[in-house]
Amino acid sequence: MPLTAALEEVGAGIDRAFDALLPVPEDARARLYEAMRYAAIGGGKRIRPLLVVAACDLFKVDRARAMRVALAVECIHVYSLIHDDLPSMDDDDLRRGKLTLHRAFEESTAILAGDSLHALAFEILADEATHEDPFVRADLVVELARAAGPAGMAGGQMMDLKAGEMGLDLPAVTRLQQLKTGALIGWCVEAGAIMGRAPVDGRTGLRGYARDVGLAFQIADDLIDHEGQEEKAGKRVGKDRAAGKQTFVSLLGPERARRQADLLVEQAIAHLHGFGEDAELLRAVARFAVERDH
Amino acid sequence: MPLTAALEEVGAGIDRAFDALLPVPEDARARLYEAMRYAAIGGGKRIRPLLVVAACDLFKVDRARAMRVALAVECIHVYSLIHDDLPSMDDDDLRRGKLTLHRAFEESTAILAGDSLHALAFEILADEATHEDPFVRADLVVELARAAGPAGMAGGQMMDLKAGEMGLDLPAVTRLQQLKTGALIGWCVEAGAIMGRAPVDGRTGLRGYARDVGLAFQIADDLIDHEGQEEKAGKRVGKDRAAGKQTFVSLLGPERARRQADLLVEQAIAHLHGFGEDAELLRAVARFAVERDH
Repeated sequence: MPLTAALEEVGAGIDRAFDALLPVPEDARARLYEAMRYAAIGGGKRIRPLLVVAACDLFKVDRARAMRVALAVECIHVYSLIHDDLPSMDDDDLRRGKLTLHRAFEESTAILAGDSLHALAFEILADEATHEDPFVRADLVVELARAAGPAGMAGGQMMDLKAGEMGLDLPAVTRLQQLKTGALIGWCVEAGAIMGRAPVDGRTGLRGYARDVGLAFQIADDLIDHEGQEEKAGKRVGKDRAAGKQTFVSLLGPERARRQADLLVEQAIAHLHGFGEDAELLRAVARFAVERDH
Repeated sequence: MPLTAALEEVGAGIDRAFDALLPVPEDARARLYEAMRYAAIGGGKRIRPLLVVAACDLFKVDRARAMRVALAVECIHVYSLIHDDLPSMDDDDLRRGKLTLHRAFEESTAILAGDSLHALAFEILADEATHEDPFVRADLVVELARAAGPAGMAGGQMMDLKAGEMGLDLPAVTRLQQLKTGALIGWCVEAGAIMGRAPVDGRTGLRGYARDVGLAFQIADDLIDHEGQEEKAGKRVGKDRAAGKQTFVSLLGPERARRQADLLVEQAIAHLHGFGEDAELLRAVARFAVERDH
């Protein structure tokens, strides 16, 4: 499947899945569900769901099941965006081209909507509809909790909050990004191997792929923040510089950063050499990570 | 085991478990771990862990495993207290006799500490150290995610935020509390049955017990908020009245509320008639739910 078709199919599938997951109840929780729908439906590149689907393709995992795993990781991603945008965190007004959730609703509702999506991710994964083998479900949960928690994404966000005052060097920025965005991206790829019950020692190449794509993706994000237009990015740009934060671009300069991202994509693709045609979509996602303009 | 000894043993065990779970790393995440330790260690009645242990006793579950499940639910409980106390939510300054986390640290750190504990709960449950049967682990995860998410605790907190403006009646307050506190308390008892692989149709009595104890516990909390002293409660009291919120006490008056709580405890204990001596601790917890003064 070519990338454009895959992006479209996965994006539409995730929207439909959120729509089914979040029917608005007829009680005082209505606003909470409306808030989750506002944040989750109809926006974003759905890169993480696409990575899940592409990694599941490697192991010929049933598409409907792959989409459940993809939905779970998007629940985590959307929750993290909601909380990161809060006034006490990055204080952003714009996300995916519209008002951030706490600006469109209330801050309290935004916090609860994030918390709710966080819980839903684990409910989806552990449900038997995701895989008939409970070992697989428990494994997905352990690894996602690690990737999202203080040893992963939440820990990386903590580092990021401290980054402005600490003046990080390149290894420190790399480590920060490996936790903040790399851990979850790594999980997306690992999830394909778990769903396909691939032997653990056959996953080394996939881990290398995920690490390189995760960093390339982050460098591309930094470049968009540096050069980009708010309209295309759908969020405030130039904010890292304004906050005095070191990024790959501030440390390497835009040209070297761009070359580094391209190199990482080549490396990522090289990690897939054993997988042949089944890895076509993963290769396309790696290229897309750095070629996008938003 | 008598209640006082059990409270002490479980309380000390949970403190030790949090201490082992949360070693402070030597990087920029140190403050996040310090914040989690501040909120999680050395405070609270540990009623939910005690309920887990008591329910596991019914099915002769190994104590070390029961304590992992108890730790997971306390992770969820502490995360919910941290987020509920935030300025945009209940805006509380005092919790468990000390400053709330966002007052002692920063609001951003508090949000991330809550998110981190939320993820850790699921990591603990799904890890094979919790149970050798992955069906059990996946089942614990699904049910906890349901109890904590928008169909449970987070949904109840949303209702609670709206309660001041809506003027709830008794059925509405009951429904709110069944979600906000009842769902998680119900999970604690259900978790014992899941860990013991008790047949699903043998759990009806336990569900009745959990529902009644949960409501009794909440009425007792309302009475403490109504009558209590801040010093003993370890948190601000009288705040429901100040916020114009309907509670069991405002709707029933303190005398009828007290009688209702006592009745619920009798009912809860009656649900345990088939369990004999193994249920002694569960009976004691039910009585403690309404006899405590904080």
